[in-house]
Amino acid sequence: MKQLITISLLLVLSVNLSAQTNATNDSIQLKKLYTEALTKGKSYLWLQQLTKKVGHRLTGSEGDKKAVAWAKAELDKLGLTKVWLQPVTVPHWVRGEKEEGHVATEFGNFNVNIRALGGSVATPEEGLLAEVIEVKSLKEVEELGDKVKGKIVFYNGAMPADKIETFKAYGAAVGQRVNGAAVAGKYGAIGAIVRSMTTKIDNVPHTGTMHYGDIEESQKIPTAAISTNSAEMLSSLLKQNDKMKLKFYFKQNCKNLPDTQSFNVIGEIEGLNYPDEIMVVGGHLDSWDLGEGAHDDGAGVVQSMEVLRLFKTLRIKNKRTLRVVLFANEEFGLSGGKAYAAEVVKKKENHIVALESDSGGFSPRGFGFTCNDKNYDQVLQWKSLFEPYNIHIFARGGGGADIGPLKKDDNVLLGLRPDSQRYFDYHHTEADVFEAVNQRELELGAASMASMLYLFDQYGVVK
Amino acid sequence: MKQLITISLLLVLSVNLSAQTNATNDSIQLKKLYTEALTKGKSYLWLQQLTKKVGHRLTGSEGDKKAVAWAKAELDKLGLTKVWLQPVTVPHWVRGEKEEGHVATEFGNFNVNIRALGGSVATPEEGLLAEVIEVKSLKEVEELGDKVKGKIVFYNGAMPADKIETFKAYGAAVGQRVNGAAVAGKYGAIGAIVRSMTTKIDNVPHTGTMHYGDIEESQKIPTAAISTNSAEMLSSLLKQNDKMKLKFYFKQNCKNLPDTQSFNVIGEIEGLNYPDEIMVVGGHLDSWDLGEGAHDDGAGVVQSMEVLRLFKTLRIKNKRTLRVVLFANEEFGLSGGKAYAAEVVKKKENHIVALESDSGGFSPRGFGFTCNDKNYDQVLQWKSLFEPYNIHIFARGGGGADIGPLKKDDNVLLGLRPDSQRYFDYHHTEADVFEAVNQRELELGAASMASMLYLFDQYGVVK
Repeated sequence: MKQLITISLLLVLSVNLSAQTNATNDSIQLKKLYTEALTKGKSYLWLQQLTKKVGHRLTGSEGDKKAVAWAKAELDKLGLTKVWLQPVTVPHWVRGEKEEGHVATEFGNFNVNIRALGGSVATPEEGLLAEVIEVKSLKEVEELGDKVKGKIVFYNGAMPADKIETFKAYGAAVGQRVNGAAVAGKYGAIGAIVRSMTTKIDNVPHTGTMHYGDIEESQKIPTAAISTNSAEMLSSLLKQNDKMKLKFYFKQNCKNLPDTQSFNVIGEIEGLNYPDEIMVVGGHLDSWDLGEGAHDDGAGVVQSMEVLRLFKTLRIKNKRTLRVVLFANEEFGLSGGKAYAAEVVKKKENHIVALESDSGGFSPRGFGFTCNDKNYDQVLQWKSLFEPYNIHIFARGGGGADIGPLKKDDNVLLGLRPDSQRYFDYHHTEADVFEAVNQRELELGAASMASMLYLFDQYGVVK
Repeated sequence: MKQLITISLLLVLSVNLSAQTNATNDSIQLKKLYTEALTKGKSYLWLQQLTKKVGHRLTGSEGDKKAVAWAKAELDKLGLTKVWLQPVTVPHWVRGEKEEGHVATEFGNFNVNIRALGGSVATPEEGLLAEVIEVKSLKEVEELGDKVKGKIVFYNGAMPADKIETFKAYGAAVGQRVNGAAVAGKYGAIGAIVRSMTTKIDNVPHTGTMHYGDIEESQKIPTAAISTNSAEMLSSLLKQNDKMKLKFYFKQNCKNLPDTQSFNVIGEIEGLNYPDEIMVVGGHLDSWDLGEGAHDDGAGVVQSMEVLRLFKTLRIKNKRTLRVVLFANEEFGLSGGKAYAAEVVKKKENHIVALESDSGGFSPRGFGFTCNDKNYDQVLQWKSLFEPYNIHIFARGGGGADIGPLKKDDNVLLGLRPDSQRYFDYHHTEADVFEAVNQRELELGAASMASMLYLFDQYGVVK
């Protein structure tokens, strides 16, 4: 009995000792990753190249092609096990000439700032002029029904500023942008103008995707985003409409061209011990055609590349396969993410973890995890390792649009959660440029991502 | 006995019930504070006025006077119990004409970006031209001793980028700026150029205070900050010095004028139940003369004012006295904070809490507390109330320079801890302007401060 107790004690002791040693090793390794990223990191330089040399890279555009070539070339320099391109069929929408818009009244015209929404049809060549009806939601249009016929519907539902996470405020309002034209068109409206998705009051329109769904061709009406300043002006003028016979005018000649081809850019460092257990890290290479796509999602692209560079530079011998995927076409329907997931199924690959960064290059606050309870308990054990780096949020839920199709019952999808306060100052606008990204914030995000994948590499995903 | 147990149980039950009810009430009240600040807050508008209408406000300058008048007038509008000015004697240093600097070599001159450090003497009217000796620390100059005689000492010790909190990186390097001229002057150097206090590599020099200490008048040498880009260039040219006979030239005509007068601007809402228990919230009204002092410390000023506005607007009947203090002269030796503390002693006032915001208007991450163990345990109990607002850091240590003199054994000094990553992109430079502040980040800071003071008002400081 005494012997048994001794053995048990020794066992307990050795298990504790081993756990402790690992925690110490892990903590040393995380420190190395953060130090390397902050002192010799490459993400910021890469972001400068991607934003300034490549520029914006709308799905199907010349910029998209340049971005694929740039990313492939940079990954080729890292000494990975292999780098390859996966062809992806993508939509090809072009904005055309710069949009024009104004409020027309008996007393004169007031110019407004608008940009066509991605996927929208054009106005007639001479533009559209019509009475305006202001609403705050899709539901209001459904209730108005035929009353919107022949009019331009002005969706002016603001993102609710009292939400602490701006993505929640976005979620509450973005339906107007995505489905506003379809709903208004269904009832005979001839155009839809949507308040920009931001809580900031400024002159910058925010573009983004919209869908016509399954409405008839004749019901597809042109739609554009209007800056919040212009939206506030339009709304206040509408309150005195009876005095001034207000109409709204806009002109855009965007169009949808036939589908074309782009590529997911992929590279990997094969795992030494469990090469079949794949850990993916990624962001999307495409962007909108306004600005430079610096936060959305240049940041996620260069941070993902930096994760692999950090592993190589620090000579971390990864046990599992670490793969970067720079997804094609996130903005126009996720065909890059879907094509990647289809290939995974076809090749019967085992993806134990997928980590996405697509919430901007701001100070990292934590991660959001989509996984089962057991795996959530597993990651919670690592939380204290991140405390020295001010990473506090280990939330349930989240991941990212591109990695979503990879979900299984027994793997972990997770997304980096940067501070969200500034994201909608830039999102889908001409203001989303390199200068809006702070070097240290970007680097801290990359280090946090590398640290998390280091831990998954060490311990795998518990079954 | 049975009765006793029943009573005990009832007591326990009622205490728990009361604790629970309070937690619920507190959580409701915090939600109201955050919602009001984010949807109808005034801090951002105030910051626009302070930065754009008043502008920079160097201690003793015309801007300083305008800032005092503006702050007094705005506080007067809030319906506080009283608002008053406390006279403070302040130094009066003026920068004079824009500084000039270049690297002179046999092959030509390279212009560099410099700005005089606050408190520095001027160069001779024609400027200073001398050989340069590069060092990375004060200690190196002590070791070089007389070898620096007749030369310009170039302090090029960079802020260590691997520190996670940038204030720690600042702390590790700023001694060069504060004491560099005094140490170099002591050994006969004729000028001191100091690498700007930032990890960012750009063209913007960062000014800040320096002290000559007790060295002789003849040893007081002119000193200026040099931008990090210029510092890197100078350092790399120095490596080839033997080929080009490099000298450094700079000219500045700043000077120290006689002391003058400024004011602490103070307002309070008297407490209903314990008016003698005073809770202070504040920031400093003075700024550097480059940029607009938006983050340093316009943000802290308007957030502190917003705390009182929130209490008034939400009709919170504070039990204890809530006082805002907008301190004069933080940048040139803290005479505002010292004068305030002296008055507190003289009037035998009881300051139970002092909260300062002087770390920029960035996303709030938490607070740093300087207090005894018992009071630290007290505040830790409130931590979970802040979780919904992503406030995670309840650290020991910190507070702020202006409130430092108020420390007692049984009170609590605390400082707001915003995210520190961007602070030294702007600190003491022409880049510290209104546009560098994000509205939501500023407002979240104000709401966090108001929430913390709401809790101190409810529960006091445990003895």
